Amino acid sequence: MSFNKKSIKVFAPATVANVVCGYDILGFAVNQPGDEVIMRFTDGKGMTISKITGDNGKLPLNPAKNTVSASVQHYLNHIGKPDVGIDIELHKKMPIGSGLGSSSASTVAGLFAVNSLFDDLLTNKALVPFAMKGEELACGYGHADNVAPALMGGFVLIRSYDPLDIISLPFPEDMHAAIVYPEVDVPTKDARQMIRSKVLLKDAVTQWGNVAGLVSGLFMKDYDLIGRSMTDILVEPTRSILIPDFAKLKSLALRNGAIGFGISGSGPSVFALTKDAGTAEKITKKLQQHLQSISINSLAFVSEVNKKGPIILD
Amino acid sequence: MSFNKKSIKVFAPATVANVVCGYDILGFAVNQPGDEVIMRFTDGKGMTISKITGDNGKLPLNPAKNTVSASVQHYLNHIGKPDVGIDIELHKKMPIGSGLGSSSASTVAGLFAVNSLFDDLLTNKALVPFAMKGEELACGYGHADNVAPALMGGFVLIRSYDPLDIISLPFPEDMHAAIVYPEVDVPTKDARQMIRSKVLLKDAVTQWGNVAGLVSGLFMKDYDLIGRSMTDILVEPTRSILIPDFAKLKSLALRNGAIGFGISGSGPSVFALTKDAGTAEKITKKLQQHLQSISINSLAFVSEVNKKGPIILD
Repeated sequence: MSFNKKSIKVFAPATVANVVCGYDILGFAVNQPGDEVIMRFTDGKGMTISKITGDNGKLPLNPAKNTVSASVQHYLNHIGKPDVGIDIELHKKMPIGSGLGSSSASTVAGLFAVNSLFDDLLTNKALVPFAMKGEELACGYGHADNVAPALMGGFVLIRSYDPLDIISLPFPEDMHAAIVYPEVDVPTKDARQMIRSKVLLKDAVTQWGNVAGLVSGLFMKDYDLIGRSMTDILVEPTRSILIPDFAKLKSLALRNGAIGFGISGSGPSVFALTKDAGTAEKITKKLQQHLQSISINSLAFVSEVNKKGPIILD
Repeated sequence: MSFNKKSIKVFAPATVANVVCGYDILGFAVNQPGDEVIMRFTDGKGMTISKITGDNGKLPLNPAKNTVSASVQHYLNHIGKPDVGIDIELHKKMPIGSGLGSSSASTVAGLFAVNSLFDDLLTNKALVPFAMKGEELACGYGHADNVAPALMGGFVLIRSYDPLDIISLPFPEDMHAAIVYPEVDVPTKDARQMIRSKVLLKDAVTQWGNVAGLVSGLFMKDYDLIGRSMTDILVEPTRSILIPDFAKLKSLALRNGAIGFGISGSGPSVFALTKDAGTAEKITKKLQQHLQSISINSLAFVSEVNKKGPIILD
């Protein structure tokens, strides 16, 4: 193994988990927003975090408590280099607690960076379990529906968690996402705790019919089927309560050409899938205007479905 | 419209509903067994059933109570010919109450026959709601996971029941089914009543991960993924109690090359999917030998996945 790079700068993308009906098992990545990590070997022993920007001081600089360094440490232990000297700079370029896989983007950027420094010892898919350790630290449970698409790009199915079984799904080439983040606070842990632990079997049947329909629609590149399947009768009715004027935002998106609309991850971000960038732009504008009219600031992002996962910037 | 045929003989196939993880939403058809209907116009008014064979006297000859004639009557009402004279002969070529869609095969044969007599006024897919009326009469609820694959052939997804949304899925060309019917009695109504009405959300997540995996595996023609996804933690644990030595049959099938194994519909029939006919033959032999060793008679069927749905025999 050659330490052929002394420093590397990586971007990793935001992700939309659940995709309405696929609670805990589906997610996709977008081209923006995302986070950047600069990583370099040092002459010291162990990890340091020299800088974090864009987090308003929210994230810990202590390497044992930061999800990025904690995941990277798992990786280093795995490859038998637990004490190698590494410094991390984390540049948050997306809001924390937005439901867009913010912790996942940072963690994935860190893991992709360290794996690049070690000459791509592992595949991106093989990095998923390390990234899940970071999610456990950030959210209280080690889910994969953000980190897997952030690492692998595109649409991803987590068929099973035990054993971990991850499948890349196809999708229509031109599909775009319109994402709007209303600036209200919805911590992931609280959003999960609101969800009932038991559900009616008949409702579960309805849900897995839609999951099967969405997956079929992705394979068939059938926008109508994708849209018809983007229905969630189990989780959305509860989580949407935390999102200002959710029903209004949904009807605005669908009236303006969205093929489907829902909550991104645990919210409060919402997203629409569209057939093209223009429709996505129009939808973000309508949603932001409405949020402004009820005095809520928001951020908006329009992107293709990300096809690459993390990339090296420098 | 011309009454261009005075008489028609139709075969409609047996079907495997649920396909392990896809309770109420997935099913596929096989080439055998199946039922036959001979239908002819009469000079009289309304329907008659002149003959039923192979049912051991179990099925009603009264057209208002028989699922075949009742479904055909719905069709005739729909096309504005409620009083046309039609006679039906039903030849049961498969066991009743076997979990192989016996009532569905008869009903579908009848509907395909009457639609053929009326010059294919409706598509096979459009006949599904009429067949569901027959299922309601036979089983107490109007499910589609037998009648839709029996009418359309192949693998079928019922994405939604309200509104009805049916999707044909692809599958590996060479895939075969090994079906064994242990001759014990499991009425569909009882089999349904055993199932819990509430389930843990985390179990439902596991299940829809597998549903999504099975659908992906069918599109990708990936036998391994299909097999890994054929796991049912919600319904099989309960229903399998009614099937003699279910766990033993399962391990025998998997050890002898099955890619997946489970209960067909509400049982007691079991089925394995295989990559070829030889493996399917071997599995049915092993399963029948075991059942014989515990003094249970059985019937076995080996078939490709049916690609056509019902066919005209004469």
